[in-house]
Amino acid sequence: MKLSLPSRRLAERYMPILTWGKTYNKDTLTSDAVAAVIVTIMLIPQSLAYALLAGLPAEMGLYASILPLLAYAVFGTSRALAVGPVAVVSLMTAAAIGNLGLSDPIEIAIAAGTLAFISGVMLTGLGLLRLGFLANFLSHPVIAGFITASGILIATSQLKHIFGISAQGHTLVELVISLFEHQHLTNPITLAIGLSTVAFLFWVRKGLKPLLLSTGMKARTAEILAKAGPVGAVVATTLLVFLFDLENKGVRIVGEVPMGLPPLTLPSLSPSLWGQLFMSALLISIIGFVESVSVAQTLAAKKRQRIVPDQELIGLGTSNIAAAISGGYPVTGGFARSVVNFDAGAETPAAGAFTAVGIGLAALLLTPLLFFLPQATLAATIIVAVLSLVDFSILKKTWSYSKVDFTAVAATILLTLGLGVEVGVSAGVILSIGLFLYKTSRPHVAEVGLVPGTQHFRNINRHKVITHPSIVSLRIDESLYFANAAFLQDYVYDRVACDQPVRHIILMCSAVNEVDMSALESLEAINLRLKDMGIKLHMSEVKGPVMDRLKRSHFLDEMTGDVFLSQYDAIEKLAPKLL
Amino acid sequence: MKLSLPSRRLAERYMPILTWGKTYNKDTLTSDAVAAVIVTIMLIPQSLAYALLAGLPAEMGLYASILPLLAYAVFGTSRALAVGPVAVVSLMTAAAIGNLGLSDPIEIAIAAGTLAFISGVMLTGLGLLRLGFLANFLSHPVIAGFITASGILIATSQLKHIFGISAQGHTLVELVISLFEHQHLTNPITLAIGLSTVAFLFWVRKGLKPLLLSTGMKARTAEILAKAGPVGAVVATTLLVFLFDLENKGVRIVGEVPMGLPPLTLPSLSPSLWGQLFMSALLISIIGFVESVSVAQTLAAKKRQRIVPDQELIGLGTSNIAAAISGGYPVTGGFARSVVNFDAGAETPAAGAFTAVGIGLAALLLTPLLFFLPQATLAATIIVAVLSLVDFSILKKTWSYSKVDFTAVAATILLTLGLGVEVGVSAGVILSIGLFLYKTSRPHVAEVGLVPGTQHFRNINRHKVITHPSIVSLRIDESLYFANAAFLQDYVYDRVACDQPVRHIILMCSAVNEVDMSALESLEAINLRLKDMGIKLHMSEVKGPVMDRLKRSHFLDEMTGDVFLSQYDAIEKLAPKLL
Repeated sequence: MKLSLPSRRLAERYMPILTWGKTYNKDTLTSDAVAAVIVTIMLIPQSLAYALLAGLPAEMGLYASILPLLAYAVFGTSRALAVGPVAVVSLMTAAAIGNLGLSDPIEIAIAAGTLAFISGVMLTGLGLLRLGFLANFLSHPVIAGFITASGILIATSQLKHIFGISAQGHTLVELVISLFEHQHLTNPITLAIGLSTVAFLFWVRKGLKPLLLSTGMKARTAEILAKAGPVGAVVATTLLVFLFDLENKGVRIVGEVPMGLPPLTLPSLSPSLWGQLFMSALLISIIGFVESVSVAQTLAAKKRQRIVPDQELIGLGTSNIAAAISGGYPVTGGFARSVVNFDAGAETPAAGAFTAVGIGLAALLLTPLLFFLPQATLAATIIVAVLSLVDFSILKKTWSYSKVDFTAVAATILLTLGLGVEVGVSAGVILSIGLFLYKTSRPHVAEVGLVPGTQHFRNINRHKVITHPSIVSLRIDESLYFANAAFLQDYVYDRVACDQPVRHIILMCSAVNEVDMSALESLEAINLRLKDMGIKLHMSEVKGPVMDRLKRSHFLDEMTGDVFLSQYDAIEKLAPKLL
Repeated sequence: MKLSLPSRRLAERYMPILTWGKTYNKDTLTSDAVAAVIVTIMLIPQSLAYALLAGLPAEMGLYASILPLLAYAVFGTSRALAVGPVAVVSLMTAAAIGNLGLSDPIEIAIAAGTLAFISGVMLTGLGLLRLGFLANFLSHPVIAGFITASGILIATSQLKHIFGISAQGHTLVELVISLFEHQHLTNPITLAIGLSTVAFLFWVRKGLKPLLLSTGMKARTAEILAKAGPVGAVVATTLLVFLFDLENKGVRIVGEVPMGLPPLTLPSLSPSLWGQLFMSALLISIIGFVESVSVAQTLAAKKRQRIVPDQELIGLGTSNIAAAISGGYPVTGGFARSVVNFDAGAETPAAGAFTAVGIGLAALLLTPLLFFLPQATLAATIIVAVLSLVDFSILKKTWSYSKVDFTAVAATILLTLGLGVEVGVSAGVILSIGLFLYKTSRPHVAEVGLVPGTQHFRNINRHKVITHPSIVSLRIDESLYFANAAFLQDYVYDRVACDQPVRHIILMCSAVNEVDMSALESLEAINLRLKDMGIKLHMSEVKGPVMDRLKRSHFLDEMTGDVFLSQYDAIEKLAPKLL
């Protein structure tokens, strides 16, 4: 197909594969293929496990790891990101579906696909509208707190499989109570399998690679074997169940997983279902996008590559739409698998496409082998994977750095654990924004004086400076806008009320980046009030853009004093003897 | 009663009457009593009219003008504020009650009282918690736009009474369509009464006082007569209906208004009703408080008195609770009546108490006289009163001053007219905050250079300045926080990507009032990335509070460059030859 130049540019912008595909060669193919093999091995047990975590049949995890990877390979901008089902999004899917109160497995599967579809449409839409910056309103500490709390929730939710009992709940308290209520039903064989798998997987993580390296094995081979740890656990425990007929001794198994490629599915278009899933889909989209982009950016930075957030939205959006039409559920870029993909040498998104082929083959050929796989093994895989997400150091860091950030993180963690993922993350966002607005609504105002021998002005309480009794210089450390306009008025009135000899107030505006209409009206009110008191109002160091705007109002004509380019100029004019 | 000193102080803080009551004397009594007479004359027709506007029986307007005034006299801090039913809050009450879809008049009256009660509890609670600053998040232009749009809605909603037809709706389109659908039913006598009353009242506003003054009448008497205009219209049109039996010619009248003092009523405590009214009560509380405080502050400023916003919340809250238990509906401080009260010489809140006595007497004695009062007369009173609220100049002012403010105002006006008061004001608040966050999320960053012969640095695009090819000085015109952390990273990377000789980046932080945890992490990332590129990161003019916090993190140890007290020091150190 021959495209005209503008259409070609447009196509290249929205389909990054057209750019990197041009330079694709045998070397990149080899690197990508090797990475794909390693990621495939890692992804098979993870996909099954995360589907169960989401409350869905195991095969949906496999389906969500095929077509979405192909979509991302075409539309994504990260060279190393591996998309698919991930722990946190699976937990959020479970919460969203749980809200619906469905019991029919087919309806549940359709709802999960619809959730992926809505989320896909949202992400793609935000990307086309170039609204990727909206994700910035999730502060880093809030995300860190949310991920940590989610990790704890997920690990706790998996304990039931380790004990071989039934338990449910969307909050930590519900889960723990439910576990205690059912603990007398614990199946000892299941518990033995679960605990030994957890122990084995932790050892694989920490001890296997050094051990293999010490035997003189090549680093690359040792790496692959270490990543294959979960597969080893899957094979071993499956054989155990099969050989000793543990199924009839109460060990729950995965059971029949349909064989074959993903089915073509259609999301529901029911307005009432869309209405019920809308908020959940929005939260999943935001969290999925933020997590994915931060992984992609971390990896891209290492190779001096660039992530285009708006195009990433389109990449993830199409991946979710692909999941929705191929029997999957919401997907996003996963941290662990992307790091593995990167470390294994993936050069282009084609590695993802090859992984999709690998998972496709597994779905086509290997599913009968999964029949005797104990659920406890999958639960152990999840627990070991998510415990690496749990990191309370953010509480310590924010406590020492900023109490405001600490408050937001602590609230996010507590609310996520106590009221579930959806409340937790919403509260985190609202609280971050609310606390920021609160801070800016009561700005820091410093009274300043001249540092002797310089042209600089500093806080009279922090530095030894020169001042004049009839001049009050106030440095306002915040943009002036509606939320703090009243505060400024009160501050100035209070300052002059008790100080008789004051004749000049100079507002030093070096940190004022904005004076909105409400603040302008407050300045007018201050000017009038001070005029009545025989005090002149001046301003200094007004920024270019702010000055441009003030000139368009009548304020400067009415102002009793002057606007000075610098605070030094102001003092030079008003109190020359001071210098 | 003898109080200990701390309890006495506490009582005085929460009951301002204990303070101003101590100095009450015959002079203030006279001033207050005269003001009360004028306000009472003005308030009788207004109270009846606003109750009808709220969709309630006329007497509820009178009831809402008795006990609430007494409560405000005890708990309020403004010396001139006159509380009672006002136009905008009455419209919002109509919208809130309309949402419930009730038809039984008793249920409607209970709902209105409950709305006042919830609003009263909210306001009092916010006051006790000292959360009055929350009202600052309504920007001045948004309020102005909302009041203007409400005025139009109110005037339009009253046209049906002028035409003597039925019409309803909560949005401008609904109202206009409904009016057109019913216009063939127009009652010509009603229309004549309505239009001539409107014309008369406009003339009273503009022409009566000058005319009376030109006859040599004393200013004070002319003032009182001019304020009594609506009462004159009420008396004249009532007589007209009575004498010519216009009631049987289709002129709708107020009808029977119960005689006597307000009944003792109890608000409903039904959780479902509270749930349905919660958001409406919140919006009414916010709008009522903001309107009331701005009136109170304007009037207080003229006499150098002080308003305590948190105590005002308590004053308005108790007024609303008083309205709820005495057959009233939501009240707040009205603009027109407070100005009249102030101009008439009210010295203390006792004037409000005397007004309450006046209205109480009217309720006790005059209600039978209101039987033949045409509804068209009351509608005319409302139209003339609210049209003075309509002021589109805010659109012009904000257009020339700030497009962001303009957007917020225009959206508030359009949404209030198009979707009703509740959507309008909510959208105004959300939009103001959203636009502020959007602006701060993409801050202005200026590349600066040295102004020759000074120690000042200015934007290289606006001023003639000296720069050095290996040094890039960036002045960041915004606090650094989660919403713009990513922006800063992108900005710095873009700036250095295309410029080979750069060896130093200096972030000039004179306008950075905050570096939160997310921004700190971005600075760390920038530092690392620049280090890889062989570029040193420096900072200058870091504010005291920001520096205190940075010192508590590890960033300063890891930073490749230095922190300079001033930008001049930085250049002096890094490029001494430049100076």
